[in-house]
Amino acid sequence: MPAKKKLPVKKTKASAPKKTASKPKGKSEINNKTGSWRESFHWGVANKPLDHSNETHVDFFSKALNAGHGELDSGDSAVQLKVKSKLSARHLGDLRKICGDENISVGDFERVKHSYGKYYEELVEQRTGKIEHIVDAVAYPADEDQILKILQYCQKNRIAVTPYGAGSSVTKALRTPRGGLSLDLSRHFHRILSFSKQNSSVTCEAGVLGPALEEFLNRQGFTCGHFPQSFEFSTVGGWAAARGAGQASTGYGRMEEMVLGMTVITPKGKLEFVEIPASAVGPDLKRLFIGSEGTLGVITRITMRVSRYNPKNTRYLSFLFKDFESSVAAMRNIMQAQIGKPHVFRISDGEETDVAFKMKNKDKGLTGKILKALGYAAGERCLMYATVEGNRDYTAFVASQMKKIARKSGGLPTGSYPVKKWLEQRYSSAYVRDPLMDAGVRIDTLETAVRWDNLMRVWENTRAYIKSFENTFCLVHISHVYETGANLYFVFASRMTDSAAKKELSEFAKLHRGIVETIIESGGTLSHHHGIGRLTSPYLEKAMGKEAFTLLKDIKKSIDVAGILNPGALNL
Amino acid sequence: MPAKKKLPVKKTKASAPKKTASKPKGKSEINNKTGSWRESFHWGVANKPLDHSNETHVDFFSKALNAGHGELDSGDSAVQLKVKSKLSARHLGDLRKICGDENISVGDFERVKHSYGKYYEELVEQRTGKIEHIVDAVAYPADEDQILKILQYCQKNRIAVTPYGAGSSVTKALRTPRGGLSLDLSRHFHRILSFSKQNSSVTCEAGVLGPALEEFLNRQGFTCGHFPQSFEFSTVGGWAAARGAGQASTGYGRMEEMVLGMTVITPKGKLEFVEIPASAVGPDLKRLFIGSEGTLGVITRITMRVSRYNPKNTRYLSFLFKDFESSVAAMRNIMQAQIGKPHVFRISDGEETDVAFKMKNKDKGLTGKILKALGYAAGERCLMYATVEGNRDYTAFVASQMKKIARKSGGLPTGSYPVKKWLEQRYSSAYVRDPLMDAGVRIDTLETAVRWDNLMRVWENTRAYIKSFENTFCLVHISHVYETGANLYFVFASRMTDSAAKKELSEFAKLHRGIVETIIESGGTLSHHHGIGRLTSPYLEKAMGKEAFTLLKDIKKSIDVAGILNPGALNL
Repeated sequence: MPAKKKLPVKKTKASAPKKTASKPKGKSEINNKTGSWRESFHWGVANKPLDHSNETHVDFFSKALNAGHGELDSGDSAVQLKVKSKLSARHLGDLRKICGDENISVGDFERVKHSYGKYYEELVEQRTGKIEHIVDAVAYPADEDQILKILQYCQKNRIAVTPYGAGSSVTKALRTPRGGLSLDLSRHFHRILSFSKQNSSVTCEAGVLGPALEEFLNRQGFTCGHFPQSFEFSTVGGWAAARGAGQASTGYGRMEEMVLGMTVITPKGKLEFVEIPASAVGPDLKRLFIGSEGTLGVITRITMRVSRYNPKNTRYLSFLFKDFESSVAAMRNIMQAQIGKPHVFRISDGEETDVAFKMKNKDKGLTGKILKALGYAAGERCLMYATVEGNRDYTAFVASQMKKIARKSGGLPTGSYPVKKWLEQRYSSAYVRDPLMDAGVRIDTLETAVRWDNLMRVWENTRAYIKSFENTFCLVHISHVYETGANLYFVFASRMTDSAAKKELSEFAKLHRGIVETIIESGGTLSHHHGIGRLTSPYLEKAMGKEAFTLLKDIKKSIDVAGILNPGALNL
Repeated sequence: MPAKKKLPVKKTKASAPKKTASKPKGKSEINNKTGSWRESFHWGVANKPLDHSNETHVDFFSKALNAGHGELDSGDSAVQLKVKSKLSARHLGDLRKICGDENISVGDFERVKHSYGKYYEELVEQRTGKIEHIVDAVAYPADEDQILKILQYCQKNRIAVTPYGAGSSVTKALRTPRGGLSLDLSRHFHRILSFSKQNSSVTCEAGVLGPALEEFLNRQGFTCGHFPQSFEFSTVGGWAAARGAGQASTGYGRMEEMVLGMTVITPKGKLEFVEIPASAVGPDLKRLFIGSEGTLGVITRITMRVSRYNPKNTRYLSFLFKDFESSVAAMRNIMQAQIGKPHVFRISDGEETDVAFKMKNKDKGLTGKILKALGYAAGERCLMYATVEGNRDYTAFVASQMKKIARKSGGLPTGSYPVKKWLEQRYSSAYVRDPLMDAGVRIDTLETAVRWDNLMRVWENTRAYIKSFENTFCLVHISHVYETGANLYFVFASRMTDSAAKKELSEFAKLHRGIVETIIESGGTLSHHHGIGRLTSPYLEKAMGKEAFTLLKDIKKSIDVAGILNPGALNL
């Protein structure tokens, strides 16, 4: 168990390389990788220092919350587990026969890394080295045939298998109460197999990471259009498995709309859904695997729709509104006006806008005075921002139409700067959590989907609940928009309990449960794009209805008769 | 068995009311409706005469094919079945207890009407009065509770149940080899339950017909955006059950994309999928019922996305291209140019364009000469036509961008007339079949979805196969377009065999099978928007793969343990 350590914000070494993290040097070390607890949970590349904007964030929240006195360990000591792999030598031997010695690991560090995602509770557990559920081994299968053999072997021997892409889950989707095997596709399933300019599609293996795909496509003059905040450290297979939506989904669509074809391996065999733009051939069974979160099979290959990439044509827009309600009305009008669509399209609510202004010192001085005089009061005013991508004339057209509508609802055009700044740091929030937690700040997020007629209610009730806790930030944005509704994304931050991690965990769990239940009671869904993993899944049966949930269980049973695929996720 | 009758084209009384078709006059007669065979299959309102354009069609094809000597019966005699209902008095009594006497019919006419769709073979069978498969009774349940009771009763007693909307299937989806009950939703499930301007959505019962929904929405300033050719005589529930796509799907999307919420009754209970714009809550199970064609449950209620209706803003475009390939390239470029989208978007291939020109006498005279001189030769030249709907400036913008792209590919702008003419008669082909068959012309259609890189191959091979039959028209169009591909719609017409219907049926079946197999071998899907019913479903297992088909069978078993729901459809 690592020693406690108090880290003042400014001096956090969150991103510095750890001495304990010896890098593997040869093939023999590949599966005996060692590393610190911190490396097992840390977001980002180990030796990359925090950028200025990250530092501002950490500074702001820890000061505002009077934090910086967290007792949480920084996790710098080396991972060493007391619990050894529960897989027998025979099972391990058999699995090594399937995948090769070099592709099965029982190393402590690898096992920890593969047993956690990035949910707040998980990060706390890893820092304190108190591990409850952990996989017994990690397999890096080399091809689809090996995956099928592993699944069939594990089915026969009742070994749990959890598919793993890059570990960015924030829904406890990777927690493995039954231990077993983590099936990591990142090592061998990272090839881009084909690209068709004519079909506007790309086929790649499921373990391809966002940047690799996007860089490849950009070179062809295309973009994948799917940019979740986890983009840098998430895989194409994970995007589909969690039914994700990227930051530009308003324009490019959700992952489930982009998947044209897919290969899935189940214990029963290989399912190949061929690339096709549309079909009326029975129910679309590939949709069963989109959102299945590893409970129904292992996605190994995806063909996705891509789009032409012309970033120089992109228009950047932002507007300030007097309040959330008028900004939402403008957003809805834009979506329903039949004028084309923006790609990124967001509103920060009053508090989120306020924090952004404060961090950039925009609330003071002349600007602040003028805005106040015009009726755009701090705490109420909301920033809307958008990009429009595509053909040059199209982006100009849609931008001008959006401006018209926004102005009608009292939107004050505030130029391209806020959007460009946001784009620069579009993936950065994820980097801020570790140093924030070093500083004693508890921060997490929850998101939901709502109809327009219910948006204000879910926003108000959930905010009210979160704000009922003293000294708690509740920053809300809308970031994925439809003709018929939108999502709501809640970021909540408060000071950690000045006590042992156990109390922090139980206090957080209580807060979290309350937020989820408030969202449900107000009519929001259990998730809009994170998936539900093991986080909101206990509410799944009630949300779906008993009959639909029974059907889902039957589908699970049909595919996974022994119940070995990510058992417990989706409450299955 | 009705008497034979030769009908010269001009004098066809196809649409005239039949003497045998006595209308029900009181409540007591409601389930004892009588009628002629012709009324049981006839498309359209009985006493509406053919319009001029229909007459031109019939004239053209029967002359060109030297037809007009068909020996097929016109079907004017009254429906009288030799086979009586196989449901026992006890079963009928029990069903009457559930629905009320007035909502169960065993009348011959009702039974025939509910056992057939509009596939060519079906029409031939009905004309000849040779009935192979027929339901034993028709139920018109009054509410969801009655449907549940019926399904549970039929499950217990192993009585087949086939949900019925308006009977426009062209895939033998309503044929009932096991007889049983037709569950007709048109009588009692025709209410529009709610409309939300804010959410841009409408909730209605599944038996609502297209025009009723659209008229309601138009009054609110909205449109449903879904216009299958069967629009006038098909229901909202049927649109979803068959995974359909309407004529304007390029702009408004497919039915499966429009469904926001849905209620389905299965023998196990009621599944309610609440209205939500998007979600990442496990797999989207409502997609299982979209395309299920009555095999998994009875869709009773649908919430669908609708759009603002501003027909005065609509732009109408058409272009003539020198050949199919260049028109397809232009279409693809338009879809991928990120300039917004047209709503209706079609290309008629060389032969279809030729027929249209000939019927309108556009191939002769000065126009014909000029076109030929410009390189737009008859038989090769292809007509592209489109509407752009929505905001006034948007439609102007998209239209101008489309023009640019079309011109680059050699498209000659031919104005709004061809589109407007097409829109005027957008539902009319369906009306032409009966008089064409009266005249001895065999006409049917098959459709498929293709990727762009495969479109020409499927078109060429399928056309070559159809044209290998002497004196056969093969008119092809593209009518549903995506960034990643499109559909291909084959209309084939030839002269009937001058012999008994039996030979005609076997010859047609051979031709049809050959077309389907050519499409499959060339890489097309079994359907793009018609569904597969019992028509192309024998190929389903091979098309899906054994593993996916096994999964589908397991899902069926989970929901419908006794296999009573539309048994045989989707090959289930």
